[in-house]
Amino acid sequence: MITRTPDVYFFASGSSEGTMPLNAFDGALLASGVGNTNLVKMSSIVPPGATRIKPLSLPFGALVPVAYASMDSSIKGQTISAAVAAAFPSDPAMPGLIMEYNATGPSQEVEQICRDMASEGLKMRGLEVQRIESAAVSHHVENTGAVFAAVVLWSSEDLE
Amino acid sequence: MITRTPDVYFFASGSSEGTMPLNAFDGALLASGVGNTNLVKMSSIVPPGATRIKPLSLPFGALVPVAYASMDSSIKGQTISAAVAAAFPSDPAMPGLIMEYNATGPSQEVEQICRDMASEGLKMRGLEVQRIESAAVSHHVENTGAVFAAVVLWSSEDLE
Amino acid sequence: MITRTPDVYFFASGSSEGTMPLNAFDGALLASGVGNTNLVKMSSIVPPGATRIKPLSLPFGALVPVAYASMDSSIKGQTISAAVAAAFPSDPAMPGLIMEYNATGPSQEVEQICRDMASEGLKMRGLEVQRIESAAVSHHVENTGAVFAAVVLWSSEDLE
Repeated sequence: MITRTPDVYFFASGSSEGTMPLNAFDGALLASGVGNTNLVKMSSIVPPGATRIKPLSLPFGALVPVAYASMDSSIKGQTISAAVAAAFPSDPAMPGLIMEYNATGPSQEVEQICRDMASEGLKMRGLEVQRIESAAVSHHVENTGAVFAAVVLWSSEDLE
Repeated sequence: MITRTPDVYFFASGSSEGTMPLNAFDGALLASGVGNTNLVKMSSIVPPGATRIKPLSLPFGALVPVAYASMDSSIKGQTISAAVAAAFPSDPAMPGLIMEYNATGPSQEVEQICRDMASEGLKMRGLEVQRIESAAVSHHVENTGAVFAAVVLWSSEDLE
Repeated sequence: MITRTPDVYFFASGSSEGTMPLNAFDGALLASGVGNTNLVKMSSIVPPGATRIKPLSLPFGALVPVAYASMDSSIKGQTISAAVAAAFPSDPAMPGLIMEYNATGPSQEVEQICRDMASEGLKMRGLEVQRIESAAVSHHVENTGAVFAAVVLWSSEDLE
């Protein structure tokens, strides 16, 4: 697992059906590419200077810090969505802020709300928004479904 | 705390009454043998090659990664149960999958559902199930009670 | 992030309004002084011999283990409170126990209940209470508000 302040990050998102809610969640993790790791949920900062990288294949069972939104539903026909957004300030010495949001409804709406939340968070810090990065996913529930959207933090020293 | 991918694991489970729900939960942790550590909840992989060991007495206040199910209730006479199950694939290079489940009702039922969930999770990965290990606990609520079942991950380098 | 059993701790608490519940929570973290870190929630032990320190300014984006209570509300006029209490035993070789509690109502009530919970937890361990330390915060909801109270664990080796 990483043992220092993270310096790289990437987005991951996915959705799935499953026999049970936790199986659907597990399937959503698999679909997002982080399904074979040990996710540790955290609130929700991108350290200053951290670099966005392409999604990694992390070691099986590694302890991985993530900020994420998720949702499951067993209401047939319902659309569920999850989004994460990271707002970065103009001042590169200041951290980025990650927000998570999930709701029923289309992913575009949920993603926009999440982006607004991230923007608002920087404003609450008195910081000017330089850019917002985001990811979202939606799922049309057949029997039991789940959605998952995350910002994964990692350390470049732990990259191969 | 462990700072690398875990390579040993053990099961822990317990139940308790308590004056408040969190005291009952704390009592359930104590009954399970991990009550004096700092549990960090994670999703839910046994790294390939990890070895099952006998429950350890972990250092007071150590940060301990665990996958767990828990439940509390203040409904007198209710039976509550928590279970964890780890399904291991035939291919030793692939990880084991932990599932957690809690519900009202007897522990045998809850444990069986949890084992089925773990088995299903391996199937979703296209892996053949070699074996399933599980633990469950139930509690008959007197006033306020809680149940806790966990797979605790640790590193053999941090063993005495 | 800290990579060993924590040996220092401090209390942090705050409240905020926000456009969305998670923004209010984020504002409460900011008000408490830990808003630019990555909080990892854990259950809830102060390691033996850990020393209380003044609140630190932790590195942006550091992974920080905390025991915390929080609550948000969008019910105009409601008072919400969060508290943490740490009970320390007479025997310095034994760990302190942290309890978290949140509810509607004034912070004094919520804090007292939380202190009683921590005291009860030591009694469940057969330990005599030497002292209880606690912190609490309340918030009168205007539109959407949140409260946050925490015990933050850290390692003196990671202090500047």
